[in-house]
Amino acid sequence: MTNSSEDWDLDKIVAELRVSRGRRRRDEQGTRASLQMPAREALHTIIDGLFGVLFPTHFGSADLSDEGIDYFVGHTLDATLRLLHEQITRELQFASAEGAEVKVKAISDHRAFEITRGFAAQLPKVRALLEKDIRAAYQGDPAAKSIEEVRFCYPGISAVTYHRIAHELHLLGAPLLARIIAELAHSATGIDIHPGAQIGGSFFIDHGTGVVIGETAIIGERVRLYQAVTLGAKRFPVGDNGVLVKGAPRHPIVEDDVVIYSGATILGRVTIGRGSTIGGNVWITRDVPGGSQVTQALARSEAFDDGGGI
Amino acid sequence: MTNSSEDWDLDKIVAELRVSRGRRRRDEQGTRASLQMPAREALHTIIDGLFGVLFPTHFGSADLSDEGIDYFVGHTLDATLRLLHEQITRELQFASAEGAEVKVKAISDHRAFEITRGFAAQLPKVRALLEKDIRAAYQGDPAAKSIEEVRFCYPGISAVTYHRIAHELHLLGAPLLARIIAELAHSATGIDIHPGAQIGGSFFIDHGTGVVIGETAIIGERVRLYQAVTLGAKRFPVGDNGVLVKGAPRHPIVEDDVVIYSGATILGRVTIGRGSTIGGNVWITRDVPGGSQVTQALARSEAFDDGGGI
Amino acid sequence: MTNSSEDWDLDKIVAELRVSRGRRRRDEQGTRASLQMPAREALHTIIDGLFGVLFPTHFGSADLSDEGIDYFVGHTLDATLRLLHEQITRELQFASAEGAEVKVKAISDHRAFEITRGFAAQLPKVRALLEKDIRAAYQGDPAAKSIEEVRFCYPGISAVTYHRIAHELHLLGAPLLARIIAELAHSATGIDIHPGAQIGGSFFIDHGTGVVIGETAIIGERVRLYQAVTLGAKRFPVGDNGVLVKGAPRHPIVEDDVVIYSGATILGRVTIGRGSTIGGNVWITRDVPGGSQVTQALARSEAFDDGGGI
Amino acid sequence: MTNSSEDWDLDKIVAELRVSRGRRRRDEQGTRASLQMPAREALHTIIDGLFGVLFPTHFGSADLSDEGIDYFVGHTLDATLRLLHEQITRELQFASAEGAEVKVKAISDHRAFEITRGFAAQLPKVRALLEKDIRAAYQGDPAAKSIEEVRFCYPGISAVTYHRIAHELHLLGAPLLARIIAELAHSATGIDIHPGAQIGGSFFIDHGTGVVIGETAIIGERVRLYQAVTLGAKRFPVGDNGVLVKGAPRHPIVEDDVVIYSGATILGRVTIGRGSTIGGNVWITRDVPGGSQVTQALARSEAFDDGGGI
Amino acid sequence: MTNSSEDWDLDKIVAELRVSRGRRRRDEQGTRASLQMPAREALHTIIDGLFGVLFPTHFGSADLSDEGIDYFVGHTLDATLRLLHEQITRELQFASAEGAEVKVKAISDHRAFEITRGFAAQLPKVRALLEKDIRAAYQGDPAAKSIEEVRFCYPGISAVTYHRIAHELHLLGAPLLARIIAELAHSATGIDIHPGAQIGGSFFIDHGTGVVIGETAIIGERVRLYQAVTLGAKRFPVGDNGVLVKGAPRHPIVEDDVVIYSGATILGRVTIGRGSTIGGNVWITRDVPGGSQVTQALARSEAFDDGGGI
Amino acid sequence: MTNSSEDWDLDKIVAELRVSRGRRRRDEQGTRASLQMPAREALHTIIDGLFGVLFPTHFGSADLSDEGIDYFVGHTLDATLRLLHEQITRELQFASAEGAEVKVKAISDHRAFEITRGFAAQLPKVRALLEKDIRAAYQGDPAAKSIEEVRFCYPGISAVTYHRIAHELHLLGAPLLARIIAELAHSATGIDIHPGAQIGGSFFIDHGTGVVIGETAIIGERVRLYQAVTLGAKRFPVGDNGVLVKGAPRHPIVEDDVVIYSGATILGRVTIGRGSTIGGNVWITRDVPGGSQVTQALARSEAFDDGGGI
Repeated sequence: MTNSSEDWDLDKIVAELRVSRGRRRRDEQGTRASLQMPAREALHTIIDGLFGVLFPTHFGSADLSDEGIDYFVGHTLDATLRLLHEQITRELQFASAEGAEVKVKAISDHRAFEITRGFAAQLPKVRALLEKDIRAAYQGDPAAKSIEEVRFCYPGISAVTYHRIAHELHLLGAPLLARIIAELAHSATGIDIHPGAQIGGSFFIDHGTGVVIGETAIIGERVRLYQAVTLGAKRFPVGDNGVLVKGAPRHPIVEDDVVIYSGATILGRVTIGRGSTIGGNVWITRDVPGGSQVTQALARSEAFDDGGGI
Repeated sequence: MTNSSEDWDLDKIVAELRVSRGRRRRDEQGTRASLQMPAREALHTIIDGLFGVLFPTHFGSADLSDEGIDYFVGHTLDATLRLLHEQITRELQFASAEGAEVKVKAISDHRAFEITRGFAAQLPKVRALLEKDIRAAYQGDPAAKSIEEVRFCYPGISAVTYHRIAHELHLLGAPLLARIIAELAHSATGIDIHPGAQIGGSFFIDHGTGVVIGETAIIGERVRLYQAVTLGAKRFPVGDNGVLVKGAPRHPIVEDDVVIYSGATILGRVTIGRGSTIGGNVWITRDVPGGSQVTQALARSEAFDDGGGI
Repeated sequence: MTNSSEDWDLDKIVAELRVSRGRRRRDEQGTRASLQMPAREALHTIIDGLFGVLFPTHFGSADLSDEGIDYFVGHTLDATLRLLHEQITRELQFASAEGAEVKVKAISDHRAFEITRGFAAQLPKVRALLEKDIRAAYQGDPAAKSIEEVRFCYPGISAVTYHRIAHELHLLGAPLLARIIAELAHSATGIDIHPGAQIGGSFFIDHGTGVVIGETAIIGERVRLYQAVTLGAKRFPVGDNGVLVKGAPRHPIVEDDVVIYSGATILGRVTIGRGSTIGGNVWITRDVPGGSQVTQALARSEAFDDGGGI
Repeated sequence: MTNSSEDWDLDKIVAELRVSRGRRRRDEQGTRASLQMPAREALHTIIDGLFGVLFPTHFGSADLSDEGIDYFVGHTLDATLRLLHEQITRELQFASAEGAEVKVKAISDHRAFEITRGFAAQLPKVRALLEKDIRAAYQGDPAAKSIEEVRFCYPGISAVTYHRIAHELHLLGAPLLARIIAELAHSATGIDIHPGAQIGGSFFIDHGTGVVIGETAIIGERVRLYQAVTLGAKRFPVGDNGVLVKGAPRHPIVEDDVVIYSGATILGRVTIGRGSTIGGNVWITRDVPGGSQVTQALARSEAFDDGGGI
Repeated sequence: MTNSSEDWDLDKIVAELRVSRGRRRRDEQGTRASLQMPAREALHTIIDGLFGVLFPTHFGSADLSDEGIDYFVGHTLDATLRLLHEQITRELQFASAEGAEVKVKAISDHRAFEITRGFAAQLPKVRALLEKDIRAAYQGDPAAKSIEEVRFCYPGISAVTYHRIAHELHLLGAPLLARIIAELAHSATGIDIHPGAQIGGSFFIDHGTGVVIGETAIIGERVRLYQAVTLGAKRFPVGDNGVLVKGAPRHPIVEDDVVIYSGATILGRVTIGRGSTIGGNVWITRDVPGGSQVTQALARSEAFDDGGGI
Repeated sequence: MTNSSEDWDLDKIVAELRVSRGRRRRDEQGTRASLQMPAREALHTIIDGLFGVLFPTHFGSADLSDEGIDYFVGHTLDATLRLLHEQITRELQFASAEGAEVKVKAISDHRAFEITRGFAAQLPKVRALLEKDIRAAYQGDPAAKSIEEVRFCYPGISAVTYHRIAHELHLLGAPLLARIIAELAHSATGIDIHPGAQIGGSFFIDHGTGVVIGETAIIGERVRLYQAVTLGAKRFPVGDNGVLVKGAPRHPIVEDDVVIYSGATILGRVTIGRGSTIGGNVWITRDVPGGSQVTQALARSEAFDDGGGI
């Protein structure tokens, strides 16, 4: 191939990039390069399909008749599950390779089938939870003029829909896909919920930009959050091998009926007791008893009173 | 249909989802299921069309000649208004159904036509306002190297363009579409402006991620905001029926020539007086007289001085 | 053309919009209207191509074999560079027109070729930096289960990839394209990094929504940021002509091995010394010596101790 | 708008084209210009949908499982019928306008619904006929290696599928759509069958390019044609008003079990008797008794013998 | 790159194909490889645009209002002419290179502009001719139920529309593009008209599959052809250099008001006199006087009578 | 599901179609329904890819530089072969199922790999043949103005390209895919060549509509055909079982340097001797000695002379 001054010098750049990739592969990856990676674009399509299955008249097709709706749902579900099955197979093969074990494709394929089937069986339950979330948003926001406005427009509802889907995949054994889905939600809404987080019913996030909810957070029923709330980790324990311990409980527990206003930061495995109200911008790293009302100044002195509100 | 272990069990899941949808419909929706919902995807196309109409050489087509530009604008406007007309018709029919009145399709269609026509007539005014916004951004940001950079790149300009479009639709009687458009802006820019908010000319939001401006906020001329500023509500009044009062004035009034730095939170129907500067991260729930300079510490003691700035 | 009550009144609106555009052009633009503007959509395609070139098995094509990978990389690079070349030509022509000089198209074209070629030559270096960033993220986040999860999912990695691309274009003389790319990253991730910012290796932003890094910021090696951190300007100097001075150093210098927790705001040309830890939500406008641990209360009194952490 | 030598002179050409359209409209069309025309592209989509409904595993989706197939068929049918309904409505409105009657949109809409519903009810019958056609092709062609090859590849089968669909629409009262579909088939296969033609079961056209079958042709069971066969009209009767009489019987009747070899031309309302064989390139304008074998020379002398074959 | 038994052996095949291309280039092409070829796909788009410009309510957009139609036409024309301009530039550069002359891009560009502009100016004339063609078809075919059916469905009308476009380009100096357009028509309709052929008004081809009209054919007013008619060349003269003489007159002249029935073959520079009728399948290589009626048997004996018809 | 008069009656139609499919399956297909069929759309993509690989500057990408061309070819080939591999796997599995044997997927997959690899290895040879075909067309047609016009526009060249691809697949063991490709060519060009036909170099079909070349035809070097030529079978032998014998030699052998003019029909396993010229519309069912010139009248009396030509 040529190399005149009118060229991009493709050969040289391609060769350098190959060397760069090669170095990486030697260090960490073995022979995985020939495996097929999960594809972000496919996850987009899968999520679109699942939104359509869950809310066919809103996100499926604007023209569905009563007569046609079940055919739409059944067909969309079938097509979506096939795509999901393929992506789960890829994740499983990839994970096997990473563990240096040689597993045959057939085993991954069967396991992927079981996960996909299990996921599908959870969809009616997921839908029921989302209906409760939507109602909670409608009831909790004076700007919400109708249930449909909430269903269509609220980024908090969108983010929780992604999350409830991702959480099922996380539980069933497809954590990488779950994580990709969580980041699709993050990109679309500015709300960052780790798929591992456990979130109860009638959950509502208003506005939502900048919300972060960590992997081991546990959230009860009827909890309401506003924008820029962080439920984060305080310290990252390091194991004997000098490496961060992965997956240990390190995020807050938020009990039922808690409201947390915008910008509040709650760090570590602390518990916010049932019915408490956490004011905007407060910074909390200790347990808060049930029924507390925490405002900014008080939070720092660890004192609580019944006044103020927010 | 079959139900072997090799199947997804489609019939069962489809039936369960049907039950789940049915339960919802009984509670709240009557017979609306056969109506056509507004379609988010159509709103995307409409917004693209309107950006092209307003700024044809920047967002319409890179190749427009002087000779062809009016044809482009006229054709794009015509096609976009037809799409918008259809979506407004859907919103009106949907809203009628919600109010349990039976209105014939023809009435919605005519009303939608009037709204669409009224909206179109506002576009030159909207464009003039946006030109002022763009100039304000250019003059207010030392990183802005050219007017074109501002027009092309600034998320604050993008968000205000969405908002000025959504606000007109909100005023004319298409609040659900207005809200969907606002959330498209929110998703794209991280800036969440309720379409009901009234915003004067030469308005500039820099960076913008996390900005929230509530439904009843009123903003004067030449106001400048930075990222993560909240103009929110303090309390949500509950009506005699125990339900949140919807739509009551509950967000700040920001007078002309105010600057509000990043992370400031201003809650409730308070007034920030003309020419004031609000420092980063301050938390304000009371009126601020004109010409004030509020910094974090001072804000809490409700005292003001002329020092500090930010 | 007609003007009945059944019409949109297209002719009138088109004429008013033409007047509106005309006014703008007289004031600021001369004859630029016939130039071709850079196209946002093309930049999207270019970024997709560059992600594919840099990480072909992850963002290029899921099915690449070892045998085919270099062909994919070479072809995608070739096609992407041609697109980039065209966009750079447009920026250069546009910039020339703005400066009122008449430069022939051929000169812009050649200069654009040189910039494109120079950019291409940097890609292996960019890729090597990104590998270090990815490793830093994996090592710094207990929720990261694998290198691949980081590569696929982490918005911080995504934002830094955009940035390292945009920064090269900024340095080589295509600042408008660089800025458009930065805003594509901002929209996708909520992370707003000006392409002028200088960022060392092994850089990691976790969660990231609301992060703002200004044009003249300088960041060392192994720095870690969390969501909503601002590295901003404190004051905007005004020149003798009463206009903001553009481009002067006005953002922080962050030395090696600094960690800055969520919501911290650092403003002005201050230096955060090597190895310091800045706690969440702190507000800093002065230099911080190396090895400091700054928490919220302390930050304001300018005192430092060794306790607390975050 | 401008008119420099660097322009296309758009205004002038647009004006001239407007005049040209106007002249046409005055002569023949009244106010139809505001009606929506049927859209060729929509017919393409409708045909794709119907092929998928009729042969879901071959033309619908390669991945259909037994469990999912009925959902696919039901959903595709529902979506396709809605599209068809809209196109039929357009044809009916257009036809009404042409007849100068003022019919309200609602009436067209209801009639279109009845036609669409009637069409849908015929689909199982159409499918059964096509299965017989496919079998006839398999049995009649020594090059056919499998039923699937016939179903997938044979242009004669494709053309007959289009025809049986178009014929039902023709009978039910949508002749313009039927004709558009016939021309889609003609373009794809080179086989031109007027939708009015009546064609019995087990019909097979081999190769097919250049076949023409006229509007009033009647074809029995188990007939086989080869390429370039014409079943045409001999003379066009002119009515008292000096205009061609439209729709009168003027094409051949071909009885059961006839074979017509390539290039044969049969013109006028003649009958080819049961079981006859018509040799290649013959030219026939008179009745042929049952059981005849017509070869080229004989055809011209109107004599028949039992020899020769083809 | 690798070469295991699991590979396609890409490197080897790519190298062999390069050698194959290289051999061709040495023989015939010089340095043309770096020129941009006209793109078939672009011609498709151009043809779609021109159909929309000529018949906006039929092939442009189904929803055009009277108010919007000129904007549609003007914008579509502008966009289409820009595409055409680029393709013509490519043809001219290519033709220059072929002739071994070095012409600068600017010259081709200007010449291409002139051709494009000239082409645009012919469009109203082309449209007027097509209206006459459509009327001739309606009047000449008893199966035609309406003018709109003819406009939408008749392949003969489609083919003539392509031809009248291609013929203008042929005359103006873009013969390669003209030829590509002619073959798009051939593929869509089975009708093969060389762009050089001169065809008068009110021209109608019925059915049309297999029609061939050669480069130097001249056809008068109100001529009607049926399927499989050939207007071809009889002999190809060879020049002194032993190579076929290109472009010499060698195809028939068909005078006004001639009808030629299906399958007739007319070869050489013969004249079919005004008002003649040529029967199906006849083979003609000599002049036919005006007013003749030629049938198959007679054609061969070069005798004519007034009987028979067809 | 409902069944009101406002419905399409989907359930009933879906059930009837299921019954219709079921009946077919019982008779002929066993359990094949769950196999994946080859997909026509995929073959389209594969053909586009192969045209790009063979003629990258004409059908690949208009913008290829010398530097980038091999990357384009290599990448396109890699992607295309993967698609082809999948389609071949489907054909093999399908064929196995048809033969009622149970073959594991892995075996089909490996065999498909071998076929794909073998096919790829033939591409340089195929390309060399096509270069000769293109040259033959250029030299044989006085209307051909340049080699590029032939390459771009000639349907005969297009059809032969499809054929040479299909023929290789036919030989290697993928006859169903080969047949689908042949029908894609037939639809695009009107030229119907069975993939089994053996065709020598420098082959040229002019115009081509209506040409049919049968499965067992053998064509020598430098043969030229015109439109509507048939090389067909005369009789179809029936085997002892009363079924047509499939695949027996039954089509003509055409030796080197033969020219066959338009509309000629040659049927049966006859030989047209080297250097013969067959006139238009003749009908031949016996051998023709080398060097003959056959015209229409003579052909029927089986006499030959040296005069006449065509």
